[in-house]
Amino acid sequence: MKKVSLLAPGPTPVPSRTLLAMAQPLIHHRSADFLEIFGKVRQGLKKVFQTENEVLTFCSSGTGAMESSVANLLSPGDKAIAIRGGKFGERWTEILKAYGCQPVNLDVPWGQAVKPADVAKLLADDPSIKAVYVQALETSTGVAHPIEELAKVTAKTDAVLVVDAVSALLAYDIPVDKWGLDVVISGSQKAMMLPPGLGFVSIGPKALKLMESSKLPKFYFSWAKELKNQTQNKGAFTSPVTLFMGLLDIFDYIDELGMQNIFAETGLKSKAFKAAMAALGLTLYSKECPSQALTAVEAPAGVDAQAVVKWLKEKYGIFIAGGQDQAKGKIFRVAHMGHISEFDTLQGISAIEMALAGLGYKFEMGAGVAAAQKVFGEAI
Amino acid sequence: MKKVSLLAPGPTPVPSRTLLAMAQPLIHHRSADFLEIFGKVRQGLKKVFQTENEVLTFCSSGTGAMESSVANLLSPGDKAIAIRGGKFGERWTEILKAYGCQPVNLDVPWGQAVKPADVAKLLADDPSIKAVYVQALETSTGVAHPIEELAKVTAKTDAVLVVDAVSALLAYDIPVDKWGLDVVISGSQKAMMLPPGLGFVSIGPKALKLMESSKLPKFYFSWAKELKNQTQNKGAFTSPVTLFMGLLDIFDYIDELGMQNIFAETGLKSKAFKAAMAALGLTLYSKECPSQALTAVEAPAGVDAQAVVKWLKEKYGIFIAGGQDQAKGKIFRVAHMGHISEFDTLQGISAIEMALAGLGYKFEMGAGVAAAQKVFGEAI
Repeated sequence: MKKVSLLAPGPTPVPSRTLLAMAQPLIHHRSADFLEIFGKVRQGLKKVFQTENEVLTFCSSGTGAMESSVANLLSPGDKAIAIRGGKFGERWTEILKAYGCQPVNLDVPWGQAVKPADVAKLLADDPSIKAVYVQALETSTGVAHPIEELAKVTAKTDAVLVVDAVSALLAYDIPVDKWGLDVVISGSQKAMMLPPGLGFVSIGPKALKLMESSKLPKFYFSWAKELKNQTQNKGAFTSPVTLFMGLLDIFDYIDELGMQNIFAETGLKSKAFKAAMAALGLTLYSKECPSQALTAVEAPAGVDAQAVVKWLKEKYGIFIAGGQDQAKGKIFRVAHMGHISEFDTLQGISAIEMALAGLGYKFEMGAGVAAAQKVFGEAI
Repeated sequence: MKKVSLLAPGPTPVPSRTLLAMAQPLIHHRSADFLEIFGKVRQGLKKVFQTENEVLTFCSSGTGAMESSVANLLSPGDKAIAIRGGKFGERWTEILKAYGCQPVNLDVPWGQAVKPADVAKLLADDPSIKAVYVQALETSTGVAHPIEELAKVTAKTDAVLVVDAVSALLAYDIPVDKWGLDVVISGSQKAMMLPPGLGFVSIGPKALKLMESSKLPKFYFSWAKELKNQTQNKGAFTSPVTLFMGLLDIFDYIDELGMQNIFAETGLKSKAFKAAMAALGLTLYSKECPSQALTAVEAPAGVDAQAVVKWLKEKYGIFIAGGQDQAKGKIFRVAHMGHISEFDTLQGISAIEMALAGLGYKFEMGAGVAAAQKVFGEAI
């Protein structure tokens, strides 16, 4: 037998009830029933984003929503800071360049978080910088950037803060309005527990003002067009009806669980997993700011991290992620966000132990599982 | 009881088997299993498009795929013909303008098809025109434009022909390679019998050459990026895994039915429906080139077409579409593409009869249903 288990940072497992909610017969995207669903989805998104801002939904991956935050805010030649401490930080630079903007790259060593003072200095040195692009969680390194502090920096300037929270939102507390985050981006396939296919963007007043002066081309990803339509509970173009049915069910599920409980449970899985890795003598890739949404672990000396990933996938049908680019072969990454239970986490730890043993690493078998069980047991 | 029936031109009904195929547990978008599915989807798309060209898949509505055919072919200030005989033709002009190109608008009266000679003349008068944008089926009017003839015109010039076949592909025979169609766009939610969420683009050699000189910004919709990835059976960004599972099932279903049979059945439903409307004394909006994918019908004098649409929706849960803009209140539109049976079609005719009677139109009740039954009966 082979039971597939998803422990990679997205797509995460979708609850069966939600898969079945999406298997209902299609309804028309301009029907009264669908307008009602759209309205409920808008309210649900505001709750999850903890904001009064409008949260737009796009039929796209998270990258499409990221692109929209360049195309709708900037004009050709505009300068914007791209905080680059991993693969997704680098994507900001790529999008800015594709649109003929001038990225001001703030390179951060992989595994480390950006220092808000460095951003403050760049903005003070060049007041023409229009925006700061950053990840809440840099998925490629497991680092949580200090978003709240960055918002305090940009609040004192004309620059707009744009936060990619695709893998962070709902995995831990990111109160958009309380922290004053101008633009926050997320997607359906991580902590939101849905299949890939939806990108979300919350847009605050400072960003709406900058949007008015933007001259970059946009049509499908036009915020102005979608704001006009979505505030009337409809999409400018055909909405992905089935994913909206799924969202509706997920918002019910989130209400049943409670958002603070989801944050706490994700934190507990993270704590247990990190305790397990320590018990195995392994170290985290991020020393200072490890995220609780996923953990990036350094493979022990003499073990190729890609071999661990491959072992889990091929021998047990368990999907975790390896490192990318400079981190390739050095780390493996395990997700805690979304519809993943304590026992899914224990299963992952158990499989990692067996893979490490098979690959020749010496340690006391079962020590990781025991350490995690201790954390889970004490939490009840 | 109220059984919802979708007879509007998209989203069309999705077969139950396909809905359940999409309700399977998620798999990872970089797993070997998913690469295999991606490869099968590519082959299936080539079959449906009847082409050896690569057919790219985007996570977007059809409009996103339309936009990609502007962003990837043109440069700022480029001229392109937009054939405008309805709402979707007008969308070409909007996209071209959003990207800073110069639309050369060829306006065609609504309900009529473009004359290829008019396109030939425009291209002869201005050889700097880079592309011709047209709909195979103008969904807002029910008109099928003469695509094969247009391809003969553009073949003699440097201009690339871009065909929006979102509601036409698989509803009737559009052999991409045989006709030499440079770019053909489609979507998942019409004749492809899937939920909305996927846009498709087939790209021929002439278009690939023009693409090389394009200077418009693109990232999420970049053809070059996706060609590099999708020819290796993966998306550049996270693929909408569930819709791919659905596509795989749909391609099996299409193989079981046979593509020529699907075209013939769609034609038969169209013929029966049109016979029914004639029997009721109603006329088609498109006199010369009515499509077989959907029928646009003129409401009789004294009857508001919107009232017919509303009657069906509110009293019977049957969704057909009204007219848009200048056709609003004048026409109603009924789809024949996709997973719609003879009896779904008869049900639609029956409901239209009852609505017309209720709205005061005088005719022999049952005449439309009888005329359609005759067509269906003779076809067995």
